[in-house]
This record gives sequence, structure tokens and C-alpha cells, in this order.
Amino acid sequence: MIKAGILGATGAVGQRFVQLLSEHPFFEITEVAASERSAGKTYLEAVSGKWILDSDIPAHVAKMTVKECRPGLDCKIIFSALDSSVAGGVEEDFARAGYYVVSNAKNHRFDDDVPMLIPEVNSDHLAIIPAQQRKRGWKGFITVKPNCSLQSYILALAPLHRKFGVKRAIITTMQAVSGAGYPGVSSLDILDNLIPYIGGEEEKSEKEPLKILGYIEGDRIVNDDSLKFSAHCNRVNIVDGHTATVSVEFAKKPTPEEILELWDSFEGDPQKLCLPSAPKKAIFYRTENNRPQPRLDRMQDGGMGIVVGRLRPCNVFDYRFVCLSHNTIRGAAGGAVLIAELLYKKGMLE
Amino acid sequence: MIKAGILGATGAVGQRFVQLLSEHPFFEITEVAASERSAGKTYLEAVSGKWILDSDIPAHVAKMTVKECRPGLDCKIIFSALDSSVAGGVEEDFARAGYYVVSNAKNHRFDDDVPMLIPEVNSDHLAIIPAQQRKRGWKGFITVKPNCSLQSYILALAPLHRKFGVKRAIITTMQAVSGAGYPGVSSLDILDNLIPYIGGEEEKSEKEPLKILGYIEGDRIVNDDSLKFSAHCNRVNIVDGHTATVSVEFAKKPTPEEILELWDSFEGDPQKLCLPSAPKKAIFYRTENNRPQPRLDRMQDGGMGIVVGRLRPCNVFDYRFVCLSHNTIRGAAGGAVLIAELLYKKGMLE
Amino acid sequence: MIKAGILGATGAVGQRFVQLLSEHPFFEITEVAASERSAGKTYLEAVSGKWILDSDIPAHVAKMTVKECRPGLDCKIIFSALDSSVAGGVEEDFARAGYYVVSNAKNHRFDDDVPMLIPEVNSDHLAIIPAQQRKRGWKGFITVKPNCSLQSYILALAPLHRKFGVKRAIITTMQAVSGAGYPGVSSLDILDNLIPYIGGEEEKSEKEPLKILGYIEGDRIVNDDSLKFSAHCNRVNIVDGHTATVSVEFAKKPTPEEILELWDSFEGDPQKLCLPSAPKKAIFYRTENNRPQPRLDRMQDGGMGIVVGRLRPCNVFDYRFVCLSHNTIRGAAGGAVLIAELLYKKGMLE
Amino acid sequence: MIKAGILGATGAVGQRFVQLLSEHPFFEITEVAASERSAGKTYLEAVSGKWILDSDIPAHVAKMTVKECRPGLDCKIIFSALDSSVAGGVEEDFARAGYYVVSNAKNHRFDDDVPMLIPEVNSDHLAIIPAQQRKRGWKGFITVKPNCSLQSYILALAPLHRKFGVKRAIITTMQAVSGAGYPGVSSLDILDNLIPYIGGEEEKSEKEPLKILGYIEGDRIVNDDSLKFSAHCNRVNIVDGHTATVSVEFAKKPTPEEILELWDSFEGDPQKLCLPSAPKKAIFYRTENNRPQPRLDRMQDGGMGIVVGRLRPCNVFDYRFVCLSHNTIRGAAGGAVLIAELLYKKGMLE
Repeated sequence: MIKAGILGATGAVGQRFVQLLSEHPFFEITEVAASERSAGKTYLEAVSGKWILDSDIPAHVAKMTVKECRPGLDCKIIFSALDSSVAGGVEEDFARAGYYVVSNAKNHRFDDDVPMLIPEVNSDHLAIIPAQQRKRGWKGFITVKPNCSLQSYILALAPLHRKFGVKRAIITTMQAVSGAGYPGVSSLDILDNLIPYIGGEEEKSEKEPLKILGYIEGDRIVNDDSLKFSAHCNRVNIVDGHTATVSVEFAKKPTPEEILELWDSFEGDPQKLCLPSAPKKAIFYRTENNRPQPRLDRMQDGGMGIVVGRLRPCNVFDYRFVCLSHNTIRGAAGGAVLIAELLYKKGMLE
Repeated sequence: MIKAGILGATGAVGQRFVQLLSEHPFFEITEVAASERSAGKTYLEAVSGKWILDSDIPAHVAKMTVKECRPGLDCKIIFSALDSSVAGGVEEDFARAGYYVVSNAKNHRFDDDVPMLIPEVNSDHLAIIPAQQRKRGWKGFITVKPNCSLQSYILALAPLHRKFGVKRAIITTMQAVSGAGYPGVSSLDILDNLIPYIGGEEEKSEKEPLKILGYIEGDRIVNDDSLKFSAHCNRVNIVDGHTATVSVEFAKKPTPEEILELWDSFEGDPQKLCLPSAPKKAIFYRTENNRPQPRLDRMQDGGMGIVVGRLRPCNVFDYRFVCLSHNTIRGAAGGAVLIAELLYKKGMLE
Repeated sequence: MIKAGILGATGAVGQRFVQLLSEHPFFEITEVAASERSAGKTYLEAVSGKWILDSDIPAHVAKMTVKECRPGLDCKIIFSALDSSVAGGVEEDFARAGYYVVSNAKNHRFDDDVPMLIPEVNSDHLAIIPAQQRKRGWKGFITVKPNCSLQSYILALAPLHRKFGVKRAIITTMQAVSGAGYPGVSSLDILDNLIPYIGGEEEKSEKEPLKILGYIEGDRIVNDDSLKFSAHCNRVNIVDGHTATVSVEFAKKPTPEEILELWDSFEGDPQKLCLPSAPKKAIFYRTENNRPQPRLDRMQDGGMGIVVGRLRPCNVFDYRFVCLSHNTIRGAAGGAVLIAELLYKKGMLE
Repeated sequence: MIKAGILGATGAVGQRFVQLLSEHPFFEITEVAASERSAGKTYLEAVSGKWILDSDIPAHVAKMTVKECRPGLDCKIIFSALDSSVAGGVEEDFARAGYYVVSNAKNHRFDDDVPMLIPEVNSDHLAIIPAQQRKRGWKGFITVKPNCSLQSYILALAPLHRKFGVKRAIITTMQAVSGAGYPGVSSLDILDNLIPYIGGEEEKSEKEPLKILGYIEGDRIVNDDSLKFSAHCNRVNIVDGHTATVSVEFAKKPTPEEILELWDSFEGDPQKLCLPSAPKKAIFYRTENNRPQPRLDRMQDGGMGIVVGRLRPCNVFDYRFVCLSHNTIRGAAGGAVLIAELLYKKGMLE
């Protein structure tokens, strides 16, 4: 069992890490760390009145003492759910001190020697890590997961892009309130309402896919600049589950059958290596005309499955469809755990 | 005062007609008609337990006897909120019998001699009515209003199209539950959820604008086929107010300032003729980055104003923005009343 | 394995039966029956567009042919989720024909020879069944479960009543929309709203507990008339989970510690017999001052646990507290399955 | 016109004061004050991104400079929407300096020389003000309005109490999220959920009515201790409008007709003096069995009317019913404006 520490363990994503790692076959939680305000308290005290999941706090974690977010923690791997206002330097401190960092924060996503991973799509980017360690003189390393908003459509588009070449896509996301953390979105702002704006989200949704679909050139990861995304990001009155409508234009237009066949057969390292958090299939296509729906489909394969539906011709581009992912599982803590499982199976945590 | 009858007066749109016409300066409600099940009851009895508006039933309407939907009603103008399963023939019967029909139903929207009107955009299509009467041998006539889903973006795009040529637009709508009537959407289907499908709605949202932006050629209205729309229509957990995200490509790309200026100065017959239901301006542009929002903006100018925001470059097309309209006022009963007011002022109800 | 048939299998409660019984250790679903409209279709076809659970339709049930609700079904036990408009006679027909009926419908709840069971509270009422069979000349029998609204507070009050004598209780329920079935409550009625009325629910909430707490006298079940309930029933905008606030007056006032101790140690036949659907404990008391909450607590022990909190002195009566139960699991299908498991373990299905 | 200043003008209740006073016949807003963080900014800047009402910020207020909450403001009357953490001392400072303070804060509610007013119920308590000024050596004075949670049921119970003697009442409130201010309740806490606890609210709901129904004895206001309330307070997923279910026991049991007649004829100084914010009637009784409902009834008479329904026998006490008030209008800013109007008409602002 690999000893694991969680940074930012008391927040919304941190709680998901605690939940997902509490009975994990590879990892055991040995440290929970958070801000100075929480440090010194038991985890139970620190999250009192702020625990937002419908499962109970795991008993052995509840009584752990919350530490500060500084190297010296008794663990090998670090799961970072830190706020971006502090994540950058803290994560570097840990990597420098020899810890293996898997981060949910945005700070290092565009460092060209830091892999931004969706394990089904670009696990080959792990090959950049030796360069990262050499250039920075680190014994540890940093890996990051991308933003929650794009997890649904990038998984659906990646296999299509590789075979048929996506030229451009126009996307509208309808994102759940849990994506804003806790307390996050005020009920007064979202009840009987939606907000057609999420700060910084459209830029992430458009730029991050280009790096994920990119390739390694020498000692850096280079964007794939052959495709373009336009994203309209909206907050809607839903607890969990980000939905995206996608219109896409291809370099070489496939048939609908070719698309469905590609989605059906698509798998990556998580499936091949039977990672514990991997969904059985990367993409679940539903044939009902009114699916996917957040409440009905977000827990597909424990919240790690991507659900797609309504593939049909687009009146302007080639095709359009709808996709859905669970934003705090696949799109946040679960996606990071999947990266950690990949690192484990690839022997990179030794 | 022109005597007015309301068909389908007990349903969701019918109730809005009753509300909007109950103290109208041009029209007085003299007849309410509905299905056989309601006929013979007082209006109060017929809507008992089904009145969904937050204003009370107007006292003089409450005690009217509900009639059947057949010619013989004591009125000159007919507001039809009939279900499309029956609206087609019934509306024709009334027009044949000399009534002036303004319909919310979809049945006659694509008859090439029936004007589908948004008074700010295509009031010139009224010129087709003599041809309609001549061809069909009617003393009365039928006019229709378009579907609720497109009212926000068509009003924003029409002036841009006429000056700069819209080539294509990809649109995602997030539509309120009141658009499905009453009882309409089950709470079990929409609570903590959204539905990425509304039957028939995408087709209407793509095709109807082409007729509205079209022109009269001889005795028929011809579509403008120079532009293309792709619409993704979603049902969201909001009482009233349809929101649309729009990405648009122009034949001749304007500057943002030109767009804002055009929206700011845009007006049509409703504003020029000071129609009672006309919003002061056809388009209200809000500069805050998180507007329009349904709950805050849907009642702009009594629910007749279109609210637009977030004009910005699109990463794929030229520009993108967000627009909002009240679906049961501007998008349904209010839009029909505005047509009736236009007919009145143009002297077409004599 | 006992062969089981489900009546009303396509509705909201029927679907829950299918879900809960599809991998049950005692029962196998061999028949699904519904109205004539569905009969002859596969179950998949019959629930198409109406399946409201977030799990998939079990594959082997999906392909079953839906039958009509008439004796002749190939099964021994019948789970009835029929609407009360038809349940009465149909359930009698099955009992007469030798089937063992467990019903969710209200029709037979006040027959004095039909046990209305909450297995933790009054499993001794099963002793009435021989009298029921004898009087009615049936080979089979009917058992019923009580209304969903009272399951939370009756389980909390029953042990207190037996030890300290409940004299009266004033209760306000806040009930989830799934309690009204599907499509049930219109989203237009409940969004940003509550409805302070549910037809017939207050009467059930006040009268049914008296029979459940009653006793067998000769060949009939007699109400306990020593206590009185007043219930205010409200519909609130929640998917699942009925909450009740309770103020209670005792014949002999206990201490808070005595109440907590009694709840903590309370168990009935389901726990003693280790029934598969039984919650580990009948009552879970939470010490946080803002619990129970429907979204966080309704799935306690698979939706079969009752969650109680906020025990404190009442300013008018002796004590007050809040309780919660899952209305479509414990309060409907799950409660009925628990009765069936009790019948099985007691040897009453042979 | 009396010059008016608003303390805490940028918060949720402060915004309502701005809205309600912006075109008031007696008062003109001359000062807006808030915390140091906002002081010096224009009001528009200070509420940027925090304006939560669906009307626009009044233009003349938008450009006012926000001041600090210290005497020296150019106004005669002060409307305080301050947080209770600071309201106590600040309001005293203003009263000492000669300002007439109407406060929404809880700090002075139990000072026995400060009237806690619902103008329809206890406007006679204004007679305590000379004593307040004399004892404290103030030229100005402080008046307060009670908590939002009790406004619905105290208005319904007051006339009944005076005629028939209320002995005790058990009440459950279902309170809207706007009652918690902005940002207030997190959407993650309330979506598909309710919270059966609001800190301090049950105590206020039980104690404040006793003072409001009390009387002046010498130079202090004395509670009416002849009646007892028990209140269960819940937060529900509704924007505006607090609902209460009430079970009540009388000293002398009236008939239902006597109750309805009393409610129908009940009026107080606001109605007699035709105060601008006064509802036409203090209590509106609706006869439909499913009313009042928050979304349909909260705006009764501009949000100042109390709506009551479902009067029926209680199974435990004498009667029960449901009542509703708009919590940020009648229950907060509107209730305070009504007090100010009463002061004006009584000549107490000279």
C-alpha cells in the first residue's frame, strides 16, 4: 500500500478524495492537510458543518490530525485539492522534496513539462516526467488533471479526432453547482435561474484540450493546433454532473456508424490495465432520445463513465451530440485518483 | 374596443391571454372557449386547481361561461392558444367565418400565405393577407406567431443579418418548464436535472427563422435561404425565461461597436407605433459579464423585452453572445397580443 | 427461490419493486403485470420514456412480456403497486386464488383482518392471517404496508409509546415529489414553491398509526385509541425523502437520555431475523444540529434506515425532534419487500 | 419629504430598502452607508455583482457615494439593515445623535423601552418612546421590527388572541433562502434538500410574539405570558416567502365562522391611516384547499399582505391553518418602512 496525503482535504474536492481513497486497493490515507485554520484539529472537527457528501466521514480519517500543507508529511503520493491561490508553490515544494504530486489545481496545467492527463486519452504524456525532473532538479514530480468542464466532450472527441481529424467544435456546457466548491454558488443566485458565465472556464475549456491532444517534442509537450474549440459555459441548478452540447466539423467526415463504432470500442490504459477506478468502458452511448441526463446518468460506473447521446447531423457542422460527466468524480477527485492508479501500475511511484 | 375571444382559454397560454387582455386599451374579452370538457362551466370552475399565474383571475372573466371552439362567438378577433392536435381546422373555420385569428399554434406556420410575425422584425409580411383571403375565399384571416424558443436570438440576429449578413449560427437553448404547458414537465424529470431534448423544438428553431427573415414574392412568403441555424434545445429547471447561447458567422464581419450600436438603435413598428405591449426598446444589452439571467431579466419591460449580454469574439465563428426572452409573454401570449395591436393600428381589424 | 409477480410494474413504485427484487436472495421476478395498455408489450417497451430510476432496467426483466393483472400469473407472491382505483378488487382476486399479496395500496389498510405492517413495530399482527383466510375463505392472503408519510415518525414513536405512553403528537411533514408517483407533481407547481396540501394524506397520517400500534382481539385488529396525532402534510421540492417535525406529549415523561437509549437499542424482527432488506439499526440518531437532511440521509442503509435528530424540549409539549425516511424505498417498495422477507422467514409463504 | 439614510445598504435587506424607498411619497433616500470596505465607492460600484433584485438599481441611488455608518449623515430617519454583530452600538449612536432609527436587526428587540412593532398589531407600543428618550437621554429613538419568521402567524393569531385567548400554538415554518441574506445559503446545501435548523430562529419565533402581544406598564413593555409557542424552523428551497403551519388551542374555542369573520374584518393603523405600504387588508384568506403557496401568494399587495388558508379542526388542539408572508418585504424592509410611515403619520418624525 502506498501512503497518500491529501492537501486541501477539508474542501469539496478534498472530501471526495477522502471518500474515494478511504478503501482503495493501492493507497492508504496517512495524512490530511489543509489551511492553518484547520491544522491541529481532528479531521472530524475541521469539516464539522462542512461535510457535503451523502456518505459518512470514514472513521479512521475522522480522527486524524489535520496537518499544514508543507513537506514533511508521512506519505509518498500527494493528492492536491488546493485552491489555485496557493497550489502553485506548495505543489512545487512537495515535488522538490521527492513527493509524487497529482493535482486538481490549474496552476501547472500549462507548464510544458507537466503532463495534463486524462488516462484514456494521453497516458503517453507521462514520458515527459524524466525531463521535468531533470530540468527542475526534482526527485518527485507533478502531474495534473484538466478542468472538469471538458472531461465529457474531450473523451468523446479524442478518438474521433485521431481517426477523422476534428477541425472545430462549438460547445455549450451546463455545469453543476458542485463545480464551484463549497459554499460556492449562492442559492439566491441559482434557484429558478441559470448564470451564463463562469470566470475563466471558457478559456480553460478551449485551451486545455489542445495540450491534452498534443504530443511530446524533445523535452516539452506541444499543443495540437490543428483544431479549434469555442465554449459557452453556464452554471445551472444541478448538484452534480456537467452536460455539454457539441457541434463538430471534421477534416474527413465519418458516417454515424463509424462514430458509434469508434465510441463503442474506445479504450485506453485504464481499461487495459484494469485500474480500480476505471469505468468498464470509456464511453457509454445511450440510444434514448432524451439522454444523457445528469441525475440519471452521472453515476455511470461510479461516476467515472462518460455518457453520450443524441448523435445526429448538425445543420451547420457535420455532427452534433450531447455528453455528460460527473464533475467532482471523473472531473475532479476521481480523475486524479485514476492518474495515481496509472502511475502505480506503470511503476512510477517506486 | 374590439371584442376578443380566446380559444384554449383554460390552458397555460390561454391563462396568459386572459391576464394580458383583461385590462387592455384596444381589446375586451367577450368570449372564452375551450374543450367540450370545460364548455358550459364558468371560467372560474373550468380553471379551478389549474390556474398557475401569480395574479388572480380577473373577476369579470371568472364568471364568463366557457364556450366550445366553434364560430358563432361574439367577438371580432380570436386569440388561439389551442393545442396543435386541433388548432389547424378550428382556426380555419374561424377565418372562413370572418374572424381575425392570431394563433400561438404551430399548424399554419409554414403555410406560405400566412404571415409568421415578430412585429419588430417582419411586420411587412402582413401584406400577404389579401392574397391569403383571395386564395382561400375567406373574409377573415390567420396570422401566427413563431415558436417561443427562437424569440430571443431572432430579435438579436435580425438587424445584424440585414446589415452584415448572417451566414450561420450555432445555438444552444436552455428553456424553462412553462414552455411545455401545464402540467407539462414532471418535477421528477427536471429536479436536480436537465433534459437535453424537446420534441420538435430543434426543427422549429432552425426553420422558422428562415421564413421570418424571408420576403414576399407574388402571393407567397419565401424563405431567406442565405443563412443556416443549428439549434440544440434543452429543458432546464426554471419557471419562466428561455436563454440561448449563440455563435455566429457573418458574410461581412462587423466590429463589436457596430453590433452594439445596431442593437441599441434597433426598433420596429411596435416602438414606432407605440403599441401598448411594445417594450421601450426591442433589445436591452446588459454590460455585466454574468447577464442576462432568467430570474433577474425575464420581466424586462413586462416580459416583452429581449435581454442580450456577453458579446465577445467567438473562437470558431466571428462573435458569440447570450440572449433571453420570457417564453410565455414575449414568446407566447404577449407576442400574439403584440401582433393584434399591430393589426389594430394598421387598420386591419375593421 | 420464491416466484414473484409485480402488479402495476410500470409505475414509479412498480419500478422500485423491479429494482429491489431483481437480485434478491429469496425472490425471483417471474411476472410483471400492468394495465391493458401495457399488456403484451415487453417491459422495456412498456416503461420506455417513463423509467425514472438512476439504475438501468434489469436485463432479464426488460425482455419479459407484461401481463394483465389477473390471477393465472406464474408466481407465488404478489407485490402490488396498483393504483387505489383498481387495487381493491384485483388484490382480493389474487388472494382468493391462493396468492400471497403484499400491497402498497391503501384499499385494505383498514380491513380489521388485514395486517398493516411495519415489521419492526407490529410483526405480531401477522397472527391475524388465519382469521382473514377463514372468514374470507381464501387460500392466499393480503398484507399491506402503511402510507409513506408516517414511516419516519411511527418508527421513532413506537418504542417510546410502549414504554412511556405517547398521549398526543403534532406533526408537520415535508414530503418529496416522488411520493406522488410519475408524472405526479408538475414542475410548474413545485419549482420555487411548496404546496401545503396533499389530498387524503393528513387523514392517513393520523389514523394509520393507531392501527399499527393496535392489538389483536379475537379475529380482528383493534386500534390503540389512547393517543392522538395531528398531521400537517406539505409537498416540497425534493426528489426523495419525507421529513417530519414532531412535538410529542407523554403520559410519563422520559428523560432525553432514556429516549436516546431506547432509540439506540430499538430493534424488531427484521434485525433479529437478519432480513436481507433490514437496516442494521431501525433508528439512526444523528447528533449534528442540522440533521437529518433528505439529500444526505435518505439513503441510510440502502434507504431502509430511519434517521432522527434534534431531540430537544418542546416549549408546549414534552419533546420535539425531526425524522426522515426514504419514501419510495422504506416508505413504499422497500417496506413491502421487508414484509415479504418477514413472511418468508416466518414460513408463511409455503 | 423626510430625508432618509440606509445603514447596511449594500446587503440583501439594504437593497430592498433602496428599492422600496426610491419612489416613496414620504421619504427620499439621501444617504447610503455600509461597511468600511464599501465606503467611498459609488453605490453602483459597491453592489456590483451583488445586486439580487429583479428590478434595476434606482439611477439616483446608483451614483450616491457610500458613507460609513456613523452619525453625521444628512438625514432625519435611519433605516438599519446592519448585521447584528455591529447593529447594537451603531444604532444607539444614531439615536443619541438625534436620528429616528427603524431597525431590522435583533439587537434591541428585547430592550423593554424599545417598541418591537407590527403596525397592525401593536402600534400602541409607540407610547413607550418618551420613556426611552428620557431614560437614555436621547433626542432620537430606536424602533425595531420583529424577526421575519413570525410575521405570518402573529398577524393571524393576534386578533384571535385578543378575542378568544390563544393558550398555546405549535408551529412549523418552512423559510425561504433569502431570509439568510446574500450569499447566505449555499446551493449545495439546499438543492434537492431542506435543512431542519436555522440558528437562533426558533427562540426568536417563540419569544418575540410574547412582547409584541404585551402591554406597557409604567416605563416598560411587559410580555404577555398567558400564551406559549413552540416553533420548528426549517430552511427550504424557495427564493422568497415563509410558510407556517399552525395548530392552536384557545382559552375559549371560537367557531370557524368567528375566526374567518375576525380575519376578514381585522385592520389596524396602517389600514385606518392609509399608509402607503399598507396592504388593503391585513389578512387575505384563500378558500382553495392548496393555498397559500409561496410563489403564487407572496406578492399579495406588493408583498405586504399576509395570506392564510386551510382553516380546519386540529386533531389535537382546536384549529389548524397555514399562513404565508413575504420575508424580505413584509418580514424585513417592507415591515420597517411601514413602521416609518406610521411614525410619520403619527407626527413622530418632527
